Amino acid sequence: MKITFLGTASAFPTRERNHSGMLLDIGPEAFLFDCGENIQRQIRIAGISPMKISRIFLTHWHGDHVLGLPGLIQSFELNGRKSELDIYGPEGSAENFHMIRKAFNINTGFKINVHNIKTGKAFETEDFEILAHGAKHTILCLGFAFVEKEKIRINKDKIEKLDIRGPIVGELANGKDITFEGKIIKAKDFTFVQKGRKLTYILDAVFDEKLIEFAKNSDILICEATFSKDMQLDAKKKGHMTAQQAGKIAAKSKSKQLIITHFSQRYHDVTPLLAEAKKEFKNTIAAKDFLEVKI
Amino acid sequence: MKITFLGTASAFPTRERNHSGMLLDIGPEAFLFDCGENIQRQIRIAGISPMKISRIFLTHWHGDHVLGLPGLIQSFELNGRKSELDIYGPEGSAENFHMIRKAFNINTGFKINVHNIKTGKAFETEDFEILAHGAKHTILCLGFAFVEKEKIRINKDKIEKLDIRGPIVGELANGKDITFEGKIIKAKDFTFVQKGRKLTYILDAVFDEKLIEFAKNSDILICEATFSKDMQLDAKKKGHMTAQQAGKIAAKSKSKQLIITHFSQRYHDVTPLLAEAKKEFKNTIAAKDFLEVKI
Repeated sequence: MKITFLGTASAFPTRERNHSGMLLDIGPEAFLFDCGENIQRQIRIAGISPMKISRIFLTHWHGDHVLGLPGLIQSFELNGRKSELDIYGPEGSAENFHMIRKAFNINTGFKINVHNIKTGKAFETEDFEILAHGAKHTILCLGFAFVEKEKIRINKDKIEKLDIRGPIVGELANGKDITFEGKIIKAKDFTFVQKGRKLTYILDAVFDEKLIEFAKNSDILICEATFSKDMQLDAKKKGHMTAQQAGKIAAKSKSKQLIITHFSQRYHDVTPLLAEAKKEFKNTIAAKDFLEVKI
Repeated sequence: MKITFLGTASAFPTRERNHSGMLLDIGPEAFLFDCGENIQRQIRIAGISPMKISRIFLTHWHGDHVLGLPGLIQSFELNGRKSELDIYGPEGSAENFHMIRKAFNINTGFKINVHNIKTGKAFETEDFEILAHGAKHTILCLGFAFVEKEKIRINKDKIEKLDIRGPIVGELANGKDITFEGKIIKAKDFTFVQKGRKLTYILDAVFDEKLIEFAKNSDILICEATFSKDMQLDAKKKGHMTAQQAGKIAAKSKSKQLIITHFSQRYHDVTPLLAEAKKEFKNTIAAKDFLEVKI
């Protein structure tokens, strides 16, 4: 799995930073989190195949998080996309998207399903689920978590020693005890549980204890750090967090790594924000456009 | 006067080329021609003050020419703009803009006037006029011409010799004959006519003889050259021109300079397009993002 940052600015884009967007590539498909203006071009510059994007998750409907949507969809259409696209966002997303389609006369040869979601499970497969959490911002806003499910894995060394082969190995992997050469082989003795990875994405939110619970045990926590701690009151008023607060969420949620992003244009150099977050949580990096992180 | 190219791609933006946009700075104010996605960021990168933009001229409502509109307007609002903004586009522009406002919940502290215009005069001041021309494209589309009015200028050398001063000089400049020290001074003997400059902007159009008349005697003709001449049939089908056709319009309209733009992504290097246009009209250059041209 790999994440690629496509935009790391807040309200104003800068020479170096585009409006928000982050791609999570899980192998067979890719998910886009937020779709700020110009994301279609950022995707091209990053050398990512846009057709791999199967699902788009929108935190909220402020321009810097959604204005890239019509252009991205038009580029899908120009590329001859046929596969369905699913878009997830807070209440009102389906209605907003309907108006955008009308305003820009967007007709596509592929189906677009827009899902209005609330706190809870947004989407689930056999392998993972995506959870949403209502964050406090100036308008309805969501955080997202990509959570892989636990998997029972075969202990290959043990199996090889007994020379067990064929379909019965699959039965062990499914947690079933089997009989092999007259002996009962207990699944639990020949398998182990592989924990799933967790990635949490919190953009545009004021500091809130509930975010700690939502981010609990993340392998990677991506968190907004629009301002520095001397702007804490202003940050709250504008519906944002400081780098210090992002660091606190990472520490208290016992996350493994923190990546701060969504920086105000006032910080041309984000080193002070990074230092501030690191004081709270050491394993922090600052996102920049086109940064790739493997999970 | 100065023009700055903010985007020179066609349907697909590339690493080097943004979707369409061109700024004409006439000194006290600036006009934006087309507003493709990401123009607000291109304006920032170019170091242009966005607040100077008083009027926006849209050729047509394809995404690559208008998707930057909501973001640019939201950035005006974030910057605390108070002055009115006038937007000119083909029939349906006011209705489309109304839907965009609703979809993106755009509320501004400044007034936005959207004008649906047809072939003819789009806008006029004492000093210049902006003309529109219905171009042939796959949807309703306009070309624009910025035309300075002729001005009567005082011949300073002659005036100084006679030592004429004060308000009566202004009367001469207004074309009135005056009496000075008993003698009749004829305005036509002490003034000359300064011709106005003309800049023509033709984007997204098929080749058409009528464009030659519209571009007549341009100081600068900005013309689309999406494809090369070996793609001529395809170009026409898609509502576009070849570099050769752009060159022909420049030559036949007796324009002074041609700038070709709006290149298909297939031409990473536009040198062959430039050569093709130059064969028809020598004084041609190829636009690139952030190219500035003084008039």
